[in-house]
Amino acid sequence: MKDLVMELDSRGIRPLYEQIYNYIKEEIRSGKLLYQEKLPSTRSLAEYLQVSRSTVDLAYEQLLSEGYIESRPYKGFFVCQVEELYDLKDAMERGEERTEDGQARFQYDFSPNIVELSSFPFGTWKKITKETLTDDRKEMFALGHPQGDIQLRRTICHYLHTSRGVNCLPEQIIVGAGNDYLLLLLEKILGRHRSVALENPTYKRAYQIFDSFAYQVRTIPMDRNGISVDALERSGADLAYVMPSHQFPTGIVMPIGRRLELLRWAAGQEGRYLIEDDYDSEFRYRGKPIPSLQASDRMGKVIYIGTFSKAIAPAIRISYMVLPGELLECYRQNYRFFSSTVSRIDQSILDVFIREGAFERHLNKMRKIYKSRHDCLLSACKRYLKNITISGENAGLHLLLHYRGKRAEEELIRLASERGVRVYGVSETYIGRLPENWQPTLILGYAGLDEKDIESGVRILSDCI
Amino acid sequence: MKDLVMELDSRGIRPLYEQIYNYIKEEIRSGKLLYQEKLPSTRSLAEYLQVSRSTVDLAYEQLLSEGYIESRPYKGFFVCQVEELYDLKDAMERGEERTEDGQARFQYDFSPNIVELSSFPFGTWKKITKETLTDDRKEMFALGHPQGDIQLRRTICHYLHTSRGVNCLPEQIIVGAGNDYLLLLLEKILGRHRSVALENPTYKRAYQIFDSFAYQVRTIPMDRNGISVDALERSGADLAYVMPSHQFPTGIVMPIGRRLELLRWAAGQEGRYLIEDDYDSEFRYRGKPIPSLQASDRMGKVIYIGTFSKAIAPAIRISYMVLPGELLECYRQNYRFFSSTVSRIDQSILDVFIREGAFERHLNKMRKIYKSRHDCLLSACKRYLKNITISGENAGLHLLLHYRGKRAEEELIRLASERGVRVYGVSETYIGRLPENWQPTLILGYAGLDEKDIESGVRILSDCI
Repeated sequence: MKDLVMELDSRGIRPLYEQIYNYIKEEIRSGKLLYQEKLPSTRSLAEYLQVSRSTVDLAYEQLLSEGYIESRPYKGFFVCQVEELYDLKDAMERGEERTEDGQARFQYDFSPNIVELSSFPFGTWKKITKETLTDDRKEMFALGHPQGDIQLRRTICHYLHTSRGVNCLPEQIIVGAGNDYLLLLLEKILGRHRSVALENPTYKRAYQIFDSFAYQVRTIPMDRNGISVDALERSGADLAYVMPSHQFPTGIVMPIGRRLELLRWAAGQEGRYLIEDDYDSEFRYRGKPIPSLQASDRMGKVIYIGTFSKAIAPAIRISYMVLPGELLECYRQNYRFFSSTVSRIDQSILDVFIREGAFERHLNKMRKIYKSRHDCLLSACKRYLKNITISGENAGLHLLLHYRGKRAEEELIRLASERGVRVYGVSETYIGRLPENWQPTLILGYAGLDEKDIESGVRILSDCI
Repeated sequence: MKDLVMELDSRGIRPLYEQIYNYIKEEIRSGKLLYQEKLPSTRSLAEYLQVSRSTVDLAYEQLLSEGYIESRPYKGFFVCQVEELYDLKDAMERGEERTEDGQARFQYDFSPNIVELSSFPFGTWKKITKETLTDDRKEMFALGHPQGDIQLRRTICHYLHTSRGVNCLPEQIIVGAGNDYLLLLLEKILGRHRSVALENPTYKRAYQIFDSFAYQVRTIPMDRNGISVDALERSGADLAYVMPSHQFPTGIVMPIGRRLELLRWAAGQEGRYLIEDDYDSEFRYRGKPIPSLQASDRMGKVIYIGTFSKAIAPAIRISYMVLPGELLECYRQNYRFFSSTVSRIDQSILDVFIREGAFERHLNKMRKIYKSRHDCLLSACKRYLKNITISGENAGLHLLLHYRGKRAEEELIRLASERGVRVYGVSETYIGRLPENWQPTLILGYAGLDEKDIESGVRILSDCI
C-alpha cells in the first residue's frame, strides 16, 4: 500500500473530498500510482489525513464513478487502467493519418491509412516467434548488423526482385524501424544543402519530414501521368521524392514514358537522385503488376524505399531502403555507426515468415479481401453517388471521388462526419495554394471496412453529396 | 576535528556503512558540518564507533562519489561546498546500449560494449511474448502512439522515478528504437544552428552522431570531477552532452558540486540544455546508486536519455528520452508526425516484463554476476599487472588501467591482440589531439567474460605490459 502524502487546505475554497479526489486522480494520471496498485482503505486514509471517513468515501466514490479506481469485494480499491486523456484530445484535434490508439469515434472511417488486422495470421506469427525464442539462440539478443541481419536482407532482396523487379544485392539494403527513420538516415547520407522536389499533392508526412531537414523543399505540379519533369527541371531540385506505382493521393500509376523521362532527368547531373516510395505496391487489381521505377534504373539513380507495415501490420516497424552504389559507399564510410533500429528477434521472425511462404499466403488472402472491398466500394459509389467521377481505382487501398456539385470539400467532409462517416479531403494533401479551378475531391480508403460497412457508409455519403 | 556523535543500530535493516553515510550527509546538508571542515580519519572514526574500518571506508567512498566530501592527499577528508540539496531516492538501476558487430575473433575480448546474454531470462520473455500474442489483442498490431504506448511510458516513468530519481510525467517520455534514433529526433526538436559540447574523451559514437548534425561540435577537457564548466562556458556551446553517473570512458562519477555548476551554466542562458546519457547507471558496486542529474534539475534544463539495451539485451531496441517542458511543447507542435519506431508488441512485452518484477529480478542477478566479474578483474589486475594504476572502478561495466611503463598504448594493444586478448585504448575515445603528458590507458570491459577468462586474459596481458 502506498502512502498518499497530500497537503489538504481545510480553509480552501475547494471541499476536502475534492482535494483528495484531485490529488489521487493526478497521481494516477501522472503514473505515480500504477495500474492495479492498491489504495489505502477509506478508514486508514481518513485517519492518516485527519478527516472524516465520509469525506474520503466521497472522494473514492468520485474516482470510482470516473473509472480511475475500481473496488474489489473484500480486497479494497485498486487503480484502473486509464486512457491518456490529454493525448486523446490531441489526437481528436489533429484528426489525421495515424491509427493512433485507433479511437473509432466514427462508425464508418474511410481512412486510407487503416489496414485490416482481423485476417492477420496470429497463429503463424506466434508459432514462428516461439521457435525464434529458443534458449540456444542467445545471439538473437545481441546487437545485430547496422544494416540489418544478412539473412533477412537476402530474403528481402529475393522478394523485391521477384515481386517488384528491383535489381540489388543484399549489401545495398538497409533495414530500419519504419520509413520515417530511414528518411532521417538518408538525410545524413545525402548531405546538406540539398533541394528536394515532391509531387503536389503528396503524402503529407513525407513533406513534413523533408521540411524538417536542412533541405530546400519544392513542390511540383502533376499531370495525368504524374510529376511534370519540365517543372522539376526548372525547380532546381537535385532530389525528387516520387510514388510511381500508385501515387498518394492521386492514385496515378506513372507510365513507362514518364519514368524514363524522370530517370533521364536524374542522369542529367551528378548528385541527382530519385527517392521511390513504393508504399502500397502489393495491391493491384487490374492487369499485371508494374515493376518498380528502380527496375528501370541503369545508372544507380534510384533510392528505393518500402515497408512491411502496410502489407503485414502497422505495428511491425520494419522498412527497407535500397541504396545505389555511390550512396552505399558514402553510408559505409561515414554512417555505419548508427545502430540498427530493429530488434534481431523481430528481424528473424519476419525472415522466417517470408521464407516459409506465410507472407505470400497472407498477401494473397489480403489481396482477395481488399479486391472485394475495392469492387464493393466502386460499385456502391457508382450506384449511390451522383455528381462524381472516380479515379485512382486500379491499385492501392483507396480511391478518389471528384465532385462536380455545389458544396465545398470541407462542407462535404463535415456533413458526412456529422452522420458518423469519416472521409478525407485531397486539398489537405496539397502543399501551398490549391490549383485554379479546384474541384472538391474526397479520398476513400476501404482497407479497414467490410463490404456491409462500405455500402452503408456510401449510402450515408450519398445523402450529403 | 569534529566529533561525530551518531547512534548506530547494529541490528537495523540498514547496513552500518549506510547509517554512517546518512548521518554525515545529513550533518553536511543541515550545515552542522561546514564547508572545508575536516572529517575524522577512517581509522579514528572506526575506533570511535567500534565498527570495522572497511565499514567507514565504504561510507566515505559513497560520500566522496556523491561529492559531499573530498579527499586531499596526506591530509584527509574535507567537506565540500554543497549549495543545493536534492533527495536521494530509493534505488535500483538502469542503462544503455553499445555493441558494434562484436564478432568474437579474440579469445578474450575485454570490450566495454558486450553484455552477458547467457543469463537472459528467455523463459520469462517467451512466456510474456506468448501471452501478448493472443488473437483477441489485434490492436497490438496497429500503429501505436508516436511517443510510445502510454502504459509502457507510465511504467518507465515509475521506474525512472524510483531508481534514478527522475522527475517526469509519462507525457514527457518518448520511446524510440535506440539512442541513436532518439538523438536524430532530438536534432529536429532542438533546431539548427546549435553548438554542442562533449566531454573529452567521450563515447565516440555520440561524437559521430553529433558531428553528422547541422551542429557545431566542441570538445571540453575534463578534470577529476568531470567536464570543466569554465571551459564549457568559454566554448560558446549551448548544448552539453554528458554522462554524469559514470562517464565513458573515464568512469568519473560527477560529484554534486559539479552537477550544480553545470545546471547553473544551463540556467544561465535561454536555449541551453544538458543532454544526460545515463547509459549504464544500473551497475554500481559500492554504496548506493547516485541519482541522475535530471533529479537535481529544477529549471527544465536536462534532457534525460536511457536505454534497455544494456540492462536487458542489445537486441531489445528500446530507449527512452525525457523532454523538459519547453522542448516537449516544441515536439508536440512540430514533430509528432514521426511514427513510433518500436513495435507495440515489443513495447507490451517489455511493459509486462518490468511490471511483473522480472526486470528487477534480472537486474539483481546481473548485478551479482557483474560484481563478481568486476571484483575478479580488479584483483587480477592488482595481482598480475605492474606499472599500472586503476580508475573508474566504482560503477559500470569497465575500468581503466593507467600505464606508467615505456610502451605506447597502441603497442600494448597490438601485443595483447597477437596473443588473443583484445583490449581498447582510451586515446581512441579522444577527439582531436591527445593532452600533453599523455599516459597510455587501457579500457577493460568485463561484462562479456567469466571469471576464468578474465583471469587468463589478465595473465596474458601481464606478459605484454
